Amino acid sequence: MKIMVINPTISEGLAESTLATYRGYASPSTEISQVFLRHGPESIESDFDIALAVPDILGHVLRAEQEGMDAVVIDCMSDPGLFAARELVEIPVIGPAQTSMSLAATLADRFTIIGVLERDRPIFHNLWRLYDLEGRGASVRVVDIPVLSLHEDEEELIQAMIAQAALAIAEDHAHAIVFGCTGMGGLADPIRQGLEESGFAGIPVIDPTGVALKVAESLVDLHLSHSKQTFPQPAAKQVVGYEHLQLS
Amino acid sequence: MKIMVINPTISEGLAESTLATYRGYASPSTEISQVFLRHGPESIESDFDIALAVPDILGHVLRAEQEGMDAVVIDCMSDPGLFAARELVEIPVIGPAQTSMSLAATLADRFTIIGVLERDRPIFHNLWRLYDLEGRGASVRVVDIPVLSLHEDEEELIQAMIAQAALAIAEDHAHAIVFGCTGMGGLADPIRQGLEESGFAGIPVIDPTGVALKVAESLVDLHLSHSKQTFPQPAAKQVVGYEHLQLS
Amino acid sequence: MKIMVINPTISEGLAESTLATYRGYASPSTEISQVFLRHGPESIESDFDIALAVPDILGHVLRAEQEGMDAVVIDCMSDPGLFAARELVEIPVIGPAQTSMSLAATLADRFTIIGVLERDRPIFHNLWRLYDLEGRGASVRVVDIPVLSLHEDEEELIQAMIAQAALAIAEDHAHAIVFGCTGMGGLADPIRQGLEESGFAGIPVIDPTGVALKVAESLVDLHLSHSKQTFPQPAAKQVVGYEHLQLS
Amino acid sequence: MKIMVINPTISEGLAESTLATYRGYASPSTEISQVFLRHGPESIESDFDIALAVPDILGHVLRAEQEGMDAVVIDCMSDPGLFAARELVEIPVIGPAQTSMSLAATLADRFTIIGVLERDRPIFHNLWRLYDLEGRGASVRVVDIPVLSLHEDEEELIQAMIAQAALAIAEDHAHAIVFGCTGMGGLADPIRQGLEESGFAGIPVIDPTGVALKVAESLVDLHLSHSKQTFPQPAAKQVVGYEHLQLS
Amino acid sequence: MKIMVINPTISEGLAESTLATYRGYASPSTEISQVFLRHGPESIESDFDIALAVPDILGHVLRAEQEGMDAVVIDCMSDPGLFAARELVEIPVIGPAQTSMSLAATLADRFTIIGVLERDRPIFHNLWRLYDLEGRGASVRVVDIPVLSLHEDEEELIQAMIAQAALAIAEDHAHAIVFGCTGMGGLADPIRQGLEESGFAGIPVIDPTGVALKVAESLVDLHLSHSKQTFPQPAAKQVVGYEHLQLS
Amino acid sequence: MKIMVINPTISEGLAESTLATYRGYASPSTEISQVFLRHGPESIESDFDIALAVPDILGHVLRAEQEGMDAVVIDCMSDPGLFAARELVEIPVIGPAQTSMSLAATLADRFTIIGVLERDRPIFHNLWRLYDLEGRGASVRVVDIPVLSLHEDEEELIQAMIAQAALAIAEDHAHAIVFGCTGMGGLADPIRQGLEESGFAGIPVIDPTGVALKVAESLVDLHLSHSKQTFPQPAAKQVVGYEHLQLS
Repeated sequence: MKIMVINPTISEGLAESTLATYRGYASPSTEISQVFLRHGPESIESDFDIALAVPDILGHVLRAEQEGMDAVVIDCMSDPGLFAARELVEIPVIGPAQTSMSLAATLADRFTIIGVLERDRPIFHNLWRLYDLEGRGASVRVVDIPVLSLHEDEEELIQAMIAQAALAIAEDHAHAIVFGCTGMGGLADPIRQGLEESGFAGIPVIDPTGVALKVAESLVDLHLSHSKQTFPQPAAKQVVGYEHLQLS
Repeated sequence: MKIMVINPTISEGLAESTLATYRGYASPSTEISQVFLRHGPESIESDFDIALAVPDILGHVLRAEQEGMDAVVIDCMSDPGLFAARELVEIPVIGPAQTSMSLAATLADRFTIIGVLERDRPIFHNLWRLYDLEGRGASVRVVDIPVLSLHEDEEELIQAMIAQAALAIAEDHAHAIVFGCTGMGGLADPIRQGLEESGFAGIPVIDPTGVALKVAESLVDLHLSHSKQTFPQPAAKQVVGYEHLQLS
Repeated sequence: MKIMVINPTISEGLAESTLATYRGYASPSTEISQVFLRHGPESIESDFDIALAVPDILGHVLRAEQEGMDAVVIDCMSDPGLFAARELVEIPVIGPAQTSMSLAATLADRFTIIGVLERDRPIFHNLWRLYDLEGRGASVRVVDIPVLSLHEDEEELIQAMIAQAALAIAEDHAHAIVFGCTGMGGLADPIRQGLEESGFAGIPVIDPTGVALKVAESLVDLHLSHSKQTFPQPAAKQVVGYEHLQLS
Repeated sequence: MKIMVINPTISEGLAESTLATYRGYASPSTEISQVFLRHGPESIESDFDIALAVPDILGHVLRAEQEGMDAVVIDCMSDPGLFAARELVEIPVIGPAQTSMSLAATLADRFTIIGVLERDRPIFHNLWRLYDLEGRGASVRVVDIPVLSLHEDEEELIQAMIAQAALAIAEDHAHAIVFGCTGMGGLADPIRQGLEESGFAGIPVIDPTGVALKVAESLVDLHLSHSKQTFPQPAAKQVVGYEHLQLS
Repeated sequence: MKIMVINPTISEGLAESTLATYRGYASPSTEISQVFLRHGPESIESDFDIALAVPDILGHVLRAEQEGMDAVVIDCMSDPGLFAARELVEIPVIGPAQTSMSLAATLADRFTIIGVLERDRPIFHNLWRLYDLEGRGASVRVVDIPVLSLHEDEEELIQAMIAQAALAIAEDHAHAIVFGCTGMGGLADPIRQGLEESGFAGIPVIDPTGVALKVAESLVDLHLSHSKQTFPQPAAKQVVGYEHLQLS
Repeated sequence: MKIMVINPTISEGLAESTLATYRGYASPSTEISQVFLRHGPESIESDFDIALAVPDILGHVLRAEQEGMDAVVIDCMSDPGLFAARELVEIPVIGPAQTSMSLAATLADRFTIIGVLERDRPIFHNLWRLYDLEGRGASVRVVDIPVLSLHEDEEELIQAMIAQAALAIAEDHAHAIVFGCTGMGGLADPIRQGLEESGFAGIPVIDPTGVALKVAESLVDLHLSHSKQTFPQPAAKQVVGYEHLQLS
């Protein structure tokens, strides 16, 4: 099975660690490839950033299907371009936000998102509305560290995440924690351990990168994909610019 | 007052009639300018089309504020790029879908959208979810005519719209009709008249182009705009490509 | 365009300042007339007060249509008699609560109502239920000043409103503020300024009187009104009392 | 126990049969008194009718408490004046719509309202919104007979109700039937029997008059009433007119 | 009228006080019988406890109908086995949670549950979802005393309940209180009095045992029961074990 | 990885085909074991059947954890005993209904359940309420064949399923199909093919057995399980009967 992970930024410097995270979650027989954008922003923190990332994401998605990939994961907790990408192809296209929050809703009464910046709050509220998850979201809390600074001091990041998760459990009655940025990928173990040390055991700490990858693998195994009635193939039409996205 | 109407396509051939529609709704003291995309699709019928339209829409929005426009209307019933555009500027950016459907919810128990193609259905369902209007949507019905063919036979279009609106009232208990495409702009009178002749008087027939323009004018008059807490200014960051969208 | 503003109380002493507020929002070509009740309470702070105000409100609404008014605004944040009034006439009847809260929902993730008394809370909760706005209401907060005392010390009122609005933003994650009483009409500028000085810039501060007036003007311009399927003309029937409300 | 049934109309001609219906449901130790309005409409079929009925309803409610009544039932499926009445007194004030629909929601997956006129539809939709019962309402269906004609041909009424109830079960998947007008009070047995003969056994056929009375008796027995935090006592204030409703 | 109260535990030591509570609420002509389980847990505090209680509950329900009982109350705030029991019989089967919370929603804007243990929280959240009461639940608060210790120090229990109820009103804006355990049955008076002494008058303090009994009596009086379309009779089929539950 | 599939019936005659279905979905390294009940019903078609199945299901779940199983799947579309089982153990316990319907909600606008009998309708409506999936359920449709007769004529079953699925798509606007009984496990291919031949291509046809197994495998791989805050360990207490379920 071949799965393409699309990092929706131009920040190839993160390639190695991100790829390692996804490979750490993959089944032995799954081959993970990773691509970055040629055109787009260095990180995704706004709807504006998303807008600049989507065209190149879609090019990668089209190419993934043409090259025989079995599924695609868009590596960002805002699921940039998810619906447009699903229109273009029949292979599963997976968003970490949709899959991880839907999973959290099956494992716990309510979950909290630990995001990066205060500006994440309305973005996640909108995703809850769009995905019908409002009844399961306990709160959005943030570590107040920009995406590209997440890895400057990983220990500081971990402590901030544990602190916010503990507050979410104690004050917001959250029963599960979902990472609000795929840049936090791979940190489930230390966060879980930190929560246990703070007296909060038995809390699912959900890393969306892992969930997205497992859902991708599962859909391929099950011969399932998104509905083409919900996401029908776009009509070929005249487009100026975006040469890599001309449909025929 | 100066309002920019952004037609999110490259189809400048429609410029005259669209501009006339908006000017027909504008207050005498409102100056309407209209722009089309340099890069983008010839019509918007999918999330894919939206993705290709948004970067140029955002460029126009940025320019609108720099050039002293008072408000911007994005002339499409999928509100393409609405949230990203609001992040970029402080002047009001208006989506016809959000404003016309919110207005419909204040005028009637439930409303029906008359869209163009069957593929509109899930797109409007998602807008209802995103805008919290699910409790007010009676149904989505479509005329089954692609956007660019809407004006090939206007009488056929009008009859199809009346037929679907009448079914919506009779079968879905819709009490208001909202046009599902801004390409239907200007047709409220004949549709209302056709409904009256079919025995359905007193039904608000809502043309989103008119509503969007009036909401834009009203917000300017009221010194109101979208919340910058919900739509905060994006951080300036490295972006490859999209030279017209470099923030500083 | 002629718009009647119905002040649903007998407190004509407020006539001048209220009228000035509405005229301040009106377009130059809009003629505003204002009426008070002959029978009814001196202020509206309860469902009981509403009940005593509605019959005379309805009389004014009937007369407004007969006298050629183009629209009516009921000048109170509980929208007293809104649905009954709409049954009686075909011209638009506008409620400040419905229009201002619906607008707030399009401008911000969630909004807070700044009301007068603690007893406002369940009344606004019921309006949120009735208007399907529960998903957009962050909180109800109050200044704890009765309606008729609002203007005794305007500076105190302004400071109390700023204080509650700041708490709403900081603690309830409100991204817009809506005045909970039309008696607060005209105070948007000082509240907005006070919030900016408190570090909360970019927050829409929504004065329902202005919104109601602009929506009224817009509906008239768009030849739109409420649905007569939702608000059908009442059957003429025997009524004892209420001579001014005999239908024929 | 003494319960006052307020018929919110001037149609005293119906007194005998209505009183008999309520007495038929009352416990032996419950004393039922019935009052009609001095001022108001001859029937309630609109929000306009409600507006004209409420002031006299409130007068009766005030008097009921002063005269030592234990509870009040407002005998109409639009619950006219329910919230205002609750503000005025501490004894329970019961609305047949709220109590019967809430009960239906506990007995069946979803229920259908069998109302009188098509214009009932939006009125019941609004009650579902206000009472948070939207998830339990299967449909509103109507017999298309005005309130005052309900008793002209009772057999015709019964057949029309059975026909609509059967359609509700077969087509709308309703699992319980609630009468949409208290003028249908007393007809549960023939409707239930008719449904059984049509092959629909085991369907709760809910007469709101009976439910309202039993809830009133139960609240009195339980020393319970509505919350005075939700329905606080109105402030005494200057009121012109409505001499019977001057608070002190 | 004969009503069977099923205590879904083996703790017959509580028989006398529980029976007294129910009899205290019953009408003079109502005969209350009480049964305990032969097989099952000593108290109900989890879904696991429920699972072990349900088979014997169902046996009692079957027997109740066979023995001519008019209705059954399952004496526990998790409504154990309610839906299965309703499938088995045509006489009303009443759950205290469903009936008391539905009643609370008709008496107040929002209510708080005062439960026993923190683990109650997700259980009540699930009941709110199942019964469509999410919009009316203000919060779940707990006294942190296990069910079987509730009566060890009744004064301590009462003080803990008053303290939590007062917090619910002050901080969660609850306008009614519902006991979260039928083991709290009979304590409405002291809790109400304690709240009044704390400055919170006019708050309905709802004892689910009383509500369940009154609803049972009312349904019998009204010849109403649950819908057999929603709760159809189970097919007789081969069952190993559960000899008392063989259907034919 | 070792996963136990609990068939919640005594119908061991189905063992071979059910096991084959699950093994067909399992990863090569996953070891599937299957158990049936010692005490319980021969099929699950009601809440009554569920009640009789749950105690033995729980015994198997306890044993599964003690024997070192990595996860448990409860093989029934009513998820019998799911929450109680999760209280008992820390290994993941998976319900096919919850997982398959949650997955469907991520792949399509709305989905239809194809169940066995009309009595399934309220059961699935309740699951939608409990799992917060009401906004995504298009309809419940049934083949009207009891569970134990599903395999008497598999071709007839397949044709009935295709017919109902086609109606769901054409009339209810369903964009995905979910099997309403795990006894339909393994039939996704012929149903999908039949839908394609009927002109409905691109519709996810979701077999809950496969989804449940893949979610179980994924959770184990991700070191995730249900929240022990939502499903805390039951207190050990006195239980009469159920010797296999004594906790210590």
